[in-house]
Order: sequence, then structure tokens, then C-alpha cells
Amino acid sequence: MTSMVDNRRQAMKLVECVPNFSEGRRPEVLDEIVGAMTAVEGVRLLDKEMDADHNRAVVTIIGSPESVLKGAFRGIERASGLIDLTKHEGEHPRMGATDVCPFVPVRDVDMSDCVELAEKLGERVGSELEIPVFLYEEAARRPERQNLAKVRKGQFEGLREEIGKNPEKDPDFGPARIHPTAGAIAIGARPFLIAYNINLGTDDLSVAKTIAKAIRQSGGGLRYVKAMGFELKDRGIVQVSINMVNFKGTPLFRAFEMVKSEAARYGVPVVGSEIVGLVPADALVDTADFYLRLENFKRDQILENRLGEDDEV
Amino acid sequence: MTSMVDNRRQAMKLVECVPNFSEGRRPEVLDEIVGAMTAVEGVRLLDKEMDADHNRAVVTIIGSPESVLKGAFRGIERASGLIDLTKHEGEHPRMGATDVCPFVPVRDVDMSDCVELAEKLGERVGSELEIPVFLYEEAARRPERQNLAKVRKGQFEGLREEIGKNPEKDPDFGPARIHPTAGAIAIGARPFLIAYNINLGTDDLSVAKTIAKAIRQSGGGLRYVKAMGFELKDRGIVQVSINMVNFKGTPLFRAFEMVKSEAARYGVPVVGSEIVGLVPADALVDTADFYLRLENFKRDQILENRLGEDDEV
Repeated sequence: MTSMVDNRRQAMKLVECVPNFSEGRRPEVLDEIVGAMTAVEGVRLLDKEMDADHNRAVVTIIGSPESVLKGAFRGIERASGLIDLTKHEGEHPRMGATDVCPFVPVRDVDMSDCVELAEKLGERVGSELEIPVFLYEEAARRPERQNLAKVRKGQFEGLREEIGKNPEKDPDFGPARIHPTAGAIAIGARPFLIAYNINLGTDDLSVAKTIAKAIRQSGGGLRYVKAMGFELKDRGIVQVSINMVNFKGTPLFRAFEMVKSEAARYGVPVVGSEIVGLVPADALVDTADFYLRLENFKRDQILENRLGEDDEV
Repeated sequence: MTSMVDNRRQAMKLVECVPNFSEGRRPEVLDEIVGAMTAVEGVRLLDKEMDADHNRAVVTIIGSPESVLKGAFRGIERASGLIDLTKHEGEHPRMGATDVCPFVPVRDVDMSDCVELAEKLGERVGSELEIPVFLYEEAARRPERQNLAKVRKGQFEGLREEIGKNPEKDPDFGPARIHPTAGAIAIGARPFLIAYNINLGTDDLSVAKTIAKAIRQSGGGLRYVKAMGFELKDRGIVQVSINMVNFKGTPLFRAFEMVKSEAARYGVPVVGSEIVGLVPADALVDTADFYLRLENFKRDQILENRLGEDDEV
């Protein structure tokens, strides 16, 4: 028989966006901002968190690149009308009503796509809302702006004085003057972070610490791995606790295999591992692909990926 | 910070349904039948195939249990008005306008759910369309009806004579008489089939054949595995070609590991494996879970599964 349907996945691009707003005390304000974002077709709310002490909210939306771009703009626009930095105080450093806004590739998009989204958003925010925009992390155009802490140094009040005078504070988009109430914004791109722990069959903490050091970037190990050793006292075992800061660059299975190999050096078995929080399906598919030694496996062979673009956010 | 959103996956149930229609020559007729099915909200067309010699079409739809149930009924209803078995001839054995209609669990549903769908559909088809219904495979109520070939023996013409006279031909639902034009229908439930090949680093076909025999159910091997050995002449290697007839009962990784272990007995490496066609994401997630030795991994930790029920078909 011959198939008469070609419904291979055409576009299942998924981007996450995690804007941080300087509002942690008025849920009704956050609701308005979130409402503006989710009113955009194809934008889905994954999470929203508020902290009164920090006076800050972290919102996670997901969807196609186009819809997330539009949603992020709508959120920033609404926040700029609702949050007044001259009246804002909280423990967390901040420089804008929308303080930071990173794009995160989730599926079928590269970091370069997310950098492009950051640039497009920055351009709109700068020109239409007249808020100065600093591109940061992977989207940074100056090496020193890769580090968000440096971009935000001095915060709203400091930046208000310096911007337009100090060329180091020239924004990448928008006017070289602070927005009187909405401040400034850092827009960027960063990889998805997976929190991943590997449990070892020993109560010897030094083994976990030694392995953590061996596998992490800073210890000469894997480029996109941060790791520390911990005790799990109630279980009488130890754990290598890992931040996989770029699961495409350093995949899960590679970290797992390296821990297993290093542990074997001490006669210690890996008794299990644990994914904390969310993980993109791709990270697990990559793992299956590795261990099954798959040849020519295509993502559109996954049945759920055939459900079609219009079923996706 | 405290999350204010609980959007853990509530229901992402997915069922596949693969009705076979006795129409392989008039695409416009098939289009009408398919249109009736996909007009049901939440029903998505995965595939449709026609064969003129067989004079038969195989349609694959997917969606929530409720929508697929409704879609299947609409298709059977439409087919009963458009296909006349008294005028049908083709190479493939058949007994009805809609000849067979199996439900296949894909995600978050058990075989028992699909058996229930088969029963509900059978009840409606029998009472509303007055077509005699035979439950087959996993939905069979008589052991001999597990085998579709036995259910369909005699085909439309033979059944027309026997039904109502021979108690062995009493339908599970509907009247004990053939529908004058739409015939009878076999409705059932069966597992998803994964076509999976494992390539061995040798040109010795006997190794592949011996391993195929060792791992398959019929040779004393794995319960839900059918396997044969083949040569891949252009690559100078051999292959164990597997039908995984129930990937929940016998998972991919178990077949892979058993082939690897048996091959090692001959000093032969597994050089790769290959999934032919579609695979449910669950089969790959189960594989990652196994090799990473994951503890307490929940399906709703997969980011894509958080996209919410209303984004799904």
C-alpha cells in the first residue's frame, strides 16, 4: 500500500521564555502582565512564581518562536505601564520593570535562533517602548555583557545616573537614557538547564566530591557540567549533584557514563540517577539514541511528533 | 519562590485507531470516510493508504480515547453508506465495508482501556447501524476470536449464509444477520507494533539467524518479540529484524541487551540498531530511564508534557 498522507512534522519549534518582573507583592499586577502574554495565540504559561521579599516574579512561557516573541513583548509592554521602579524595593537586584528576559531553545531551534529572537525583541522594546535594552549571555554583543551581574551592576538607580554618560553603559537598542519608570531591560538567550543527580553506592562523601570535581568544567571535565558532591544521610549514600547547563553540548548520557567510569575506579557502583524538575524530551531521546546505537533516527519517527503543528502551542 | 501554577499533565491519553475499509479504488469515497472521522474534534489523521489490487484502504487516526471512539463510529457509519460488499472484489479477504477496526494504546492508556473502547464502539455499531460485530484480538470474548483470520473465515459471502444459523458465528453485538451491503465488522484492541532492527558486525548470516531464534517468543525467548535473521549485502553485515509486538510488555532495551549478550557469545559486536517507521515517545523514554537508572521519574517531568491538555489532540 502507498501512503497518501505526508504529515511529517513540518515545524514543531518550541522556545521557552523566562521574563523576570519587578513585582512580587501584587498578584493582580502579575496576573495582568501574564494575561497580556497568554492572550497571544500559541503562548502557553508553564509557570509563574512570586517572591515578596525579592519583590520579583519569574514567569515561564513556551510556544513557537513567533508567538513567544510576541508574548514577551506584550508582557514587557504591560509591565512598563504597571510597575514603577522609582517606587520599587526588594532584596533582589533589578534595573527594570521587566528586569531580564531570556529565550531558551527547547525543541528544533538553535541557540542562534534564540539570539535572533532576543535581537528582534530588543529592537521592538527599544524603539516602541523607549526602554534601553542590553543584550546578555549568548546574545551579548560585548564580551562583558555575557555576565548578567555585570550588566545589572548599579541597578536602576545607578544606571539612571550613568547611562548616556558612560559609553560602557550604552544600550544595544533603544535610547541612551533610562525609562523614567520602567528602567532598563536585559534581553538574552541561554540554554535549558537540567538538574541531574547521580547516586553512588557508598557513604564515602570524598568519592562523590572527587568525582564531581573530575567531571565538571572547572575541574578539567565536561564543558557544560557543574557538579558538587553531597551526602544523602537518610539513605546512607552519596550523590554527585549536577547542573547540565547545555544538554545539547554535553548530553545526559555522557555525564552519566563518566560518573560510572570514575566511580568504578573506587569500586563504587552507580545505584541510580534522578532528574529534578523538567527535562526536554530531546534529552531523553538523545539518551535512547546513544544506548541503542540508533542509525539514522529522525525525530519525526516519534509518533507524538506527527500530531501536527496546529496541535502544538 | 513558590510556583503559583499547577499545570502538571492531567490527561494526555492517546489512542490510535486503524480501521480498514473495503475500498481501494475510489479515492473520493475514502476521502468522504476520512472526512467524517476527522470532522470529530480532537481526531487527527496519521496516515491513509489505498491498494487497488486489494481493493482496501488502511486509515490511521489518533487522539483522545473519546474523540477516537467517536471518529471511528463516524467512519464506519459513512463507510456503511458508501461501500456495497455485494459489488466488492479484491485480493484481500474481507467481510465488511469497514472490515476491521482495532484500537491501539499509545500513551497513558492500557490495553484494558482499548478493550473498553472496542466494546463501546461494538455496542453502538451493532445497535445503531445494525451491523453484526465480532470482538477480536485482545478484545475477544471467545478464545477462537483472538485470531482475526478465524473470525473472517468465509468472508462476506460465507458469513452471509452462516450467521444466524451457526452459533459459532453469533456476533458479540448487533443482529445475528449480515448487513445487506455493509456486511460485518471485526472490532478489537491490539498493542502498538514497533519494527526494530539490530545490526551485527559480521557477514555470517547464521549468527543473525541463531540470535533471532534465541530472542523470539517461539524460540523460548522474549514473550513479545518476533525476529528473523537477514543479510544486509551492501553493507556486508547481518541483521536481526524484530517485530516488537508489545513494547510495554517487552521493552526495546531488553531486546537490544539480549541481542548484544547473545552476539558477544560469538565475539560479534552490535554495530547499530534501527527503528523503522513510527515509535511512541514512551518507548524511548523507557529506554533512557533504564540506562540512566532513573529513580522516581515521572512522565510529567517532560517539558513537552506540560503543554496542557487542550494543546493535545
